[in-house]
Amino acid sequence: MAPTSRDPRPIGFNLFEMACVGHISHGLWVHPENSRHRFNDLDFWVDQARLAEEGLLDAIFLADVIGTYDGYRAGPETALQEAVQIPSNDPLLVIPAMAAATRHLGFAATFSTTYEPPFAFARRASTLDHLTKGRFGWNVVTSYLPNAARNFGLPGEVEHDTRYAIADEYLDVLYKLWEGSWDDDAVVQDRENHVYTDPAKVRYIDHVGEHFSVAGPHLAQPSAQRTPVIFQAGSSSTGKAFAAKHAEGVFVGGYDLESYRQNVADLRRLAVLEGREPTDVKTYAMAVVIVGRTRAEAERKAEEFERLSRAEGYLAHAGGGGIDLAAYPRDALMSEVLAQEAAAGRDRTSRTRFFRAEGTVADALREVTRFDRPPFFAIGTPSEVVDEIEGWVRETDLDGFNLRQFLTPGTLEDFVELVVPELQRRGLYRTRYEESTLRERLFGPGRARLPDTHHGARYRGGANLGPAGVPRVVTAALAR
Amino acid sequence: MAPTSRDPRPIGFNLFEMACVGHISHGLWVHPENSRHRFNDLDFWVDQARLAEEGLLDAIFLADVIGTYDGYRAGPETALQEAVQIPSNDPLLVIPAMAAATRHLGFAATFSTTYEPPFAFARRASTLDHLTKGRFGWNVVTSYLPNAARNFGLPGEVEHDTRYAIADEYLDVLYKLWEGSWDDDAVVQDRENHVYTDPAKVRYIDHVGEHFSVAGPHLAQPSAQRTPVIFQAGSSSTGKAFAAKHAEGVFVGGYDLESYRQNVADLRRLAVLEGREPTDVKTYAMAVVIVGRTRAEAERKAEEFERLSRAEGYLAHAGGGGIDLAAYPRDALMSEVLAQEAAAGRDRTSRTRFFRAEGTVADALREVTRFDRPPFFAIGTPSEVVDEIEGWVRETDLDGFNLRQFLTPGTLEDFVELVVPELQRRGLYRTRYEESTLRERLFGPGRARLPDTHHGARYRGGANLGPAGVPRVVTAALAR
Repeated sequence: MAPTSRDPRPIGFNLFEMACVGHISHGLWVHPENSRHRFNDLDFWVDQARLAEEGLLDAIFLADVIGTYDGYRAGPETALQEAVQIPSNDPLLVIPAMAAATRHLGFAATFSTTYEPPFAFARRASTLDHLTKGRFGWNVVTSYLPNAARNFGLPGEVEHDTRYAIADEYLDVLYKLWEGSWDDDAVVQDRENHVYTDPAKVRYIDHVGEHFSVAGPHLAQPSAQRTPVIFQAGSSSTGKAFAAKHAEGVFVGGYDLESYRQNVADLRRLAVLEGREPTDVKTYAMAVVIVGRTRAEAERKAEEFERLSRAEGYLAHAGGGGIDLAAYPRDALMSEVLAQEAAAGRDRTSRTRFFRAEGTVADALREVTRFDRPPFFAIGTPSEVVDEIEGWVRETDLDGFNLRQFLTPGTLEDFVELVVPELQRRGLYRTRYEESTLRERLFGPGRARLPDTHHGARYRGGANLGPAGVPRVVTAALAR
Repeated sequence: MAPTSRDPRPIGFNLFEMACVGHISHGLWVHPENSRHRFNDLDFWVDQARLAEEGLLDAIFLADVIGTYDGYRAGPETALQEAVQIPSNDPLLVIPAMAAATRHLGFAATFSTTYEPPFAFARRASTLDHLTKGRFGWNVVTSYLPNAARNFGLPGEVEHDTRYAIADEYLDVLYKLWEGSWDDDAVVQDRENHVYTDPAKVRYIDHVGEHFSVAGPHLAQPSAQRTPVIFQAGSSSTGKAFAAKHAEGVFVGGYDLESYRQNVADLRRLAVLEGREPTDVKTYAMAVVIVGRTRAEAERKAEEFERLSRAEGYLAHAGGGGIDLAAYPRDALMSEVLAQEAAAGRDRTSRTRFFRAEGTVADALREVTRFDRPPFFAIGTPSEVVDEIEGWVRETDLDGFNLRQFLTPGTLEDFVELVVPELQRRGLYRTRYEESTLRERLFGPGRARLPDTHHGARYRGGANLGPAGVPRVVTAALAR
C-alpha cells in the first residue's frame, strides 16, 4: 500500500518514559546532568509534565515491566548494577500528580493483561480517566519476562499465543465494564427525589469466559473517554492481529525506513479487515533526536551519549527474555545457539525476538548493544533534524514518534526549545492545544469515545453482555 | 486492664474518606453545601488535603470496597439510587496529587488481600511511600461483599477464617519484599564505577507458601518507611488476633464507652502476647463531631443531618453482607431469621455482624439505620465537644479518632476552625507538625521503620527468606 496523503493534524510526539532510572538508554544515568536518580520524587514527574505541556506534546508514555531481567549471566546482578529497569515504581501512580499540574497533556501507561485481574484494573483506568478528565491511555502488554511469571505464582512464562488469547478476553471484559455497564445518562443526581444513579441504566456484565468470570457492575461511572486510548506494540503476527483489532495507537517496529513503511501499511490493511478505517490506527516509531544549535554541538552530544552507553546494560536488557548469550562461546553460530535454546524449551517469539539466526554470537552481541537504537536516528541542527522527521513521516506514513531520552530533562528541553519551533514554522506541529481529551487529540474534535467500528463499541447500551450474549438488565422499579 | 496514663503525644485525628459519593453518611449528598458529587475531580482531593494539613490532622484515611452492595432487596438498585459506595474510584490513585499539594499530612488507603496478587501491591505501596516521602499507610482488609468475590472469578465469598489465613501469608510475602529483599545501603549510585545498585545487597525472596509463590526481588528500592504503617479493623476473634500481630493502628469497634475500653485493653493485651509493647498499637474510634458556635447552632446542624439521612441507604449498606431483611416479615424474630440464613449457608461472621439475634425484624431495621452511628457522638460548642473527646480518651485509652463527614468540606472546616483551637488550648493537640513520616507521627521521632519486635522485622537483612527459611543471596561477584 502506498503512503496515504497526510491529514492536516500535526505530527505527534510522546515523551517515552518509565518510572525507573534506566529505561532504554543504559549507562546514561552517570551523566552529571542526568536526574534519573530522582525518579522516586513527585517533583521529578511534575517538572517533566510541565515541560512536556509547554512543548505541546501529545502525551507522556510510561513503559513498565513487572519482573527483573535475570536471564543474562543467569542472574539479576547486571540489571541491578546497571539499573536496567530496576529499581522501578508503579507507572499508574505517578500520573495523578502530573495531571494536577497540567491541563492538556495526555498520559499513557503500560499494564499487563497476564497477571492481574481485569476488574480492579478497569476501575484504576476509569479513575485515571476521571482524574485526568479524559487524558488517559493504556499500553496493553502481555509481559515476556520469565521472572515476572515467577512473581505471580507461575513456574515460568505463559506461552506467547496463550498470553494473547488471555489478553483478547481481558479486553472484552474491560470493554463490557467501560462501555456496557453504565449508560451515559445513568448518573442523574436528582437531589429532590434522592436518586443519585438511575438503576435502570446500570447493569451487571455477567462475563463468563475461558479465562475470566466477572459479574460487575463496573464501580466507576462513565469517564470522558470511557475506554482509555488503547496503545499496543505487538510485532509478531499474533501481536499485529491483536493491534489491528484493538489498538488505536501502535508502536511500530522495523529495521529501516522500508520495513517501517511496510509495517505501517500492513497494520492499516489488517485494521481495514477488522472493519476499521486505515486512519483509525495511529502509528508511532521510537525516535532518537539529538539536536544542537550547530551540527558540531549535536555530534558532540551524540558522541558523549555513545561513550557513556553500557554494553552490559543492553545485554542484561536483551537477556531478560531468557537467552543468556554470555553462556556461549563467542564464535558459536547463532543458528546453533537458537536451536539449542529451542531444545531447552526456550524457543519462543518473546525470547528470541532480540536475536537473529545469522552470524556468530560475537555478531549478535555487537548487534544487541544496538537493539534499542531505533532506525530513526536524527542528529544535527533543528533544521536538519526536522528534515529527517518530515522525510520519514512522508515516506513511512507514520503518525508520530516516541521520543527516547538520553538525559532527563535535557533531551526534552532540547526538543522543546529547538525542535518544536522548527516543526511549527513548517506547519508540522500544533501551536496550541485544541482538544480536551487524548482520543480527540489523536482523532479530532468530537471523538472522545471509541468509534462505532471499534470492537469495544459492540457492548454499548448493554448489548452483547452475559455468557449467552443476553443482557441482564437491573430492574428499574424500586418499592419504597 | 486499667487505662494507662497517656503519653504526651497529641490525640490523633484522621479524616475518614472514601473515593465515592456516599461513604457512610447515607442521604447527605443532597445537601446543597455538600460537594461529594465532585469526587471524580482532582481538585476535590487537593482542596481537602490542604485543609486537613492546615488543621494538622494525622492523615486522610480512605476506605474502599471492590464490589456492589447487592444483598438488600436482592439487587444493587438501592445502593445505586442512594449512591452507597457506588460509583467509586480507586483509592490509591487520589493520593499522589494530594501528596504533591502537602508536605506533612499522612495518607492511609484500604486494599484487600483476598483478590489481587501481593507482588504488584508491594510495588504500589512502595511507590506511594516514595512519592509521599514516607507518609503512606495501608488499611488491610479481607473483603466481605459477595459481589466482590464474583468480580474476581469466584462463585461467592471466601470463608472468613480462610480469608484471614490468606491475609496472614499475604503480609508475610509483603514483609519479605519490603523489609528483606533490599538492604538499606543497596543503592550506591557510584557513577565512577557504573554501579547503581550493589547486587550483593538485593535478594530474591523465593516465597513458596500455601497460597502464594513469589520469587522477587522487590522492584522498588527501600522507601522511607519500607513497610507502610499497617492499619486494620478486625472485630472478630480472628480479626483481633491478626491485628495484634500485624496492625500498628486499629479501628476499634464497640457499642458504648465501656466496650471500647474493653476492646482497647484486649488489643493491647493480645499485642503483648505477640511480643509487642502495649503502645505499639494505636487505637482509633469513629467519631461524629458536630460543632457550632452555640449549642443551638450545633443542634440545628445535627437535626438537618438526621432529617436528610436515608434509611434505605443504611439498609442497602447493611444488606451488602448478604442478609436481605426486606425479604422477611417485620414481626419475624431475628433469632429465627439468622437461623434461616444459617441453614441457607449465609451464616458467617462477616454477613451477620450487622445484626443481633434479639428482637424482631422491625427492631433490627430500626437498629441498622443507626449501625454506622458510632457511640462517640459529640454535638455542641467547641468546649462541649472537646470535653467529650477528652473524657472518652481518658476513659477508653483510645489514641484518636476517624472523623466522620456529613458534609464535604463542611465537617472538616468546622473541625479545623472550631475544634482544633480548643484542643490546642488544652494541650491535647499538636500546634505544628514535627515528624516527616507517618509512622514517626504515631510513634515518635526516629521510628520511621517497623520496631524490632514487629513480626515483619524478622525478614530484615534477608533473614528467614525462602521456602526453607534459608536466604538465597544474589552472588556479588560480576565477571566483566
